[in-house]
Amino acid sequence: FSTASGETVRATLFPGDGIGPEIAESVKQVFNVAGVPIEWEEHYVGTEVDPRTESFLTWESLESVRRNKVGLKGPMATPIGKGHRSLNLTLRKELGLYANVRPCNSLPGYKTRYDDVNLVTIRENTEGEYSGLEHQVVRGVVESLKIITRQASLRVAEYAFHYAKTNGRERVSAIHKANIMRKTDGLFLKCCREVAEKYPEIVYEEVIIDNCCMTLVKNPGLFDVLVMPNLYGDIISDLCAGLIGGLGLTPSCNIGEGGICLAEAVHGSAPDIAGKNLANPTALMLSAVMMLRHLQFNNQADRIHNAILQTISEGKFRTADLGGKASTSDFTKAVCDHI
Amino acid sequence: FSTASGETVRATLFPGDGIGPEIAESVKQVFNVAGVPIEWEEHYVGTEVDPRTESFLTWESLESVRRNKVGLKGPMATPIGKGHRSLNLTLRKELGLYANVRPCNSLPGYKTRYDDVNLVTIRENTEGEYSGLEHQVVRGVVESLKIITRQASLRVAEYAFHYAKTNGRERVSAIHKANIMRKTDGLFLKCCREVAEKYPEIVYEEVIIDNCCMTLVKNPGLFDVLVMPNLYGDIISDLCAGLIGGLGLTPSCNIGEGGICLAEAVHGSAPDIAGKNLANPTALMLSAVMMLRHLQFNNQADRIHNAILQTISEGKFRTADLGGKASTSDFTKAVCDHI
Ligand SMILES: CC(C)[C@H](C(=O)O)[C@@H](O)C(=O)O
Ligand SMILES: CC(C)[C@H](C(=O)O)[C@@H](O)C(=O)O
Repeated sequence: FSTASGETVRATLFPGDGIGPEIAESVKQVFNVAGVPIEWEEHYVGTEVDPRTESFLTWESLESVRRNKVGLKGPMATPIGKGHRSLNLTLRKELGLYANVRPCNSLPGYKTRYDDVNLVTIRENTEGEYSGLEHQVVRGVVESLKIITRQASLRVAEYAFHYAKTNGRERVSAIHKANIMRKTDGLFLKCCREVAEKYPEIVYEEVIIDNCCMTLVKNPGLFDVLVMPNLYGDIISDLCAGLIGGLGLTPSCNIGEGGICLAEAVHGSAPDIAGKNLANPTALMLSAVMMLRHLQFNNQADRIHNAILQTISEGKFRTADLGGKASTSDFTKAVCDHI
Repeated sequence: FSTASGETVRATLFPGDGIGPEIAESVKQVFNVAGVPIEWEEHYVGTEVDPRTESFLTWESLESVRRNKVGLKGPMATPIGKGHRSLNLTLRKELGLYANVRPCNSLPGYKTRYDDVNLVTIRENTEGEYSGLEHQVVRGVVESLKIITRQASLRVAEYAFHYAKTNGRERVSAIHKANIMRKTDGLFLKCCREVAEKYPEIVYEEVIIDNCCMTLVKNPGLFDVLVMPNLYGDIISDLCAGLIGGLGLTPSCNIGEGGICLAEAVHGSAPDIAGKNLANPTALMLSAVMMLRHLQFNNQADRIHNAILQTISEGKFRTADLGGKASTSDFTKAVCDHI
């Protein structure tokens, strides 16, 4: 396979744990059938701590993403044990993955309580409540620090407005609780406002997080692009995934320093069904489509995307999580047939 | 009016601003018709700052609640201007209102996307992310402190389990993000576990907040009583209100030090429709019912509660926010007629 110019693109693949390898296999098959000119560099989570990453992630795997600047990641369960950094948090930190982007669209043919969800959450992914700075002040009194910086806030706001503009979106809503956290969330809003001024064609609004969640469950159609600090993004992106059916159907991608794009299925590794050909590869496939769009392989992205939507919509080959009886390979084959 | 023993109970009433006085009037009418033996001590928000409360709340109004230990509060908008403490936060602080309790039930006859909501959120109301402790570290870097104490966590956990037990509830879910905030949310969970051990008849579980929100929008019927730190409670209680139609339909009550119970409609003061006889008094009426149950006026509470549900369910006298044409007084009269 090769690009128009005859070149092959190298991309890093983290199949991950549990159901990860099976659903990664599905993506590979689909990419083959669609003729995607990608050569995978496959990396598994190590079986012991790599001192250079202080985690089970190997140094080579991180180097691979840094070099290729593009990758796809399945679910990774952090091995139980004390003192190891979470694999997901290590990846975010080591690769400077500053924005988590999750388009959330109602899937035609897969019925939930909502049929009008068409929004994108953009989550600051490096700071805020995830600083890891906590301590006991005196016995029975503990504190955590939430850190908001101008640099990280501007960076994610820039990304959100750029995304809105280049994806035909009309509005960016900054989600906050600055009526309480005046300084931290206040700085986040200040940065969003600064960036908003450079995008007069995009409507900018600010929505308090409690009101945002209430509105999302009443009328998600009112939202377009949402940008927010880390914890609010964690909460709201999963809430939105719930509106369309859950994490098994929701793609995501992480934008990192130096133009890295690491697409990621954010669901768990489902060890109970691992290796049984039962897992739903949809989230990883849709994440892979995001990766293709990032590479501007729009033709293949469209074909794969449509094939996934058609397969789900027809309903004949649904996996168990969607109430069907299809195996992972049945579903994958159906998608391939539609390409 | 008087109790069985012939006594009258004194309760504080804060009609509040905007639509507050109208909907408070509705509650008074309904209480009259139902023969509730309550004598109101009515207090309005002051027009200037009372130095003894450092806010627009008068010292006398706080003393009234402390003395009566029971009250009802309409919406209060904090006057715009710098440096004044929010009225709601001042009330929580001055009266030690440590738990905000919100039963959230689908209203028969008022259709939303959900018909099976029957849960109660119990929010720690005094600390956490609401500490007010924030500062700039260096230019462009700000931090907020989240404070979790053993004392406040035990207190709200105790309340939640006691509530569950005395209200025929079967399960308490503690909502947290202790996988990230190991020390603060970790302490909160530790306290919940300690209390859970004293209530072996109540099922105890722990749910991570992102997963909780996703599950709430997919299947709220899975939850019973939820207990959580301040900010999560702020977010989740509004999300749950959204499931059943919004803050205009959701009652709440605040439990404070020394056995205070301050029932509260948590919606806004809606200045645009104030004084126009258009507001929906449901949330304040249902909050008043919570106050009656606290006073063990169960007979009157039941009669008023049923009358409200019947009026909404019949649908003939719905206010504009519910898509109807009834005025505040039409609705109130209909409720009175049903009592
Ligand atoms: C697993 C956990 C650390 C992670 C987070 O909180 O960010 C997850 O919830 C996510 O959203 O990717
Ligand atoms: C108005 C605001 C300070 C308040 C809060 O955040 O607690 C409100 O959202 C609430 O839930 O009562």
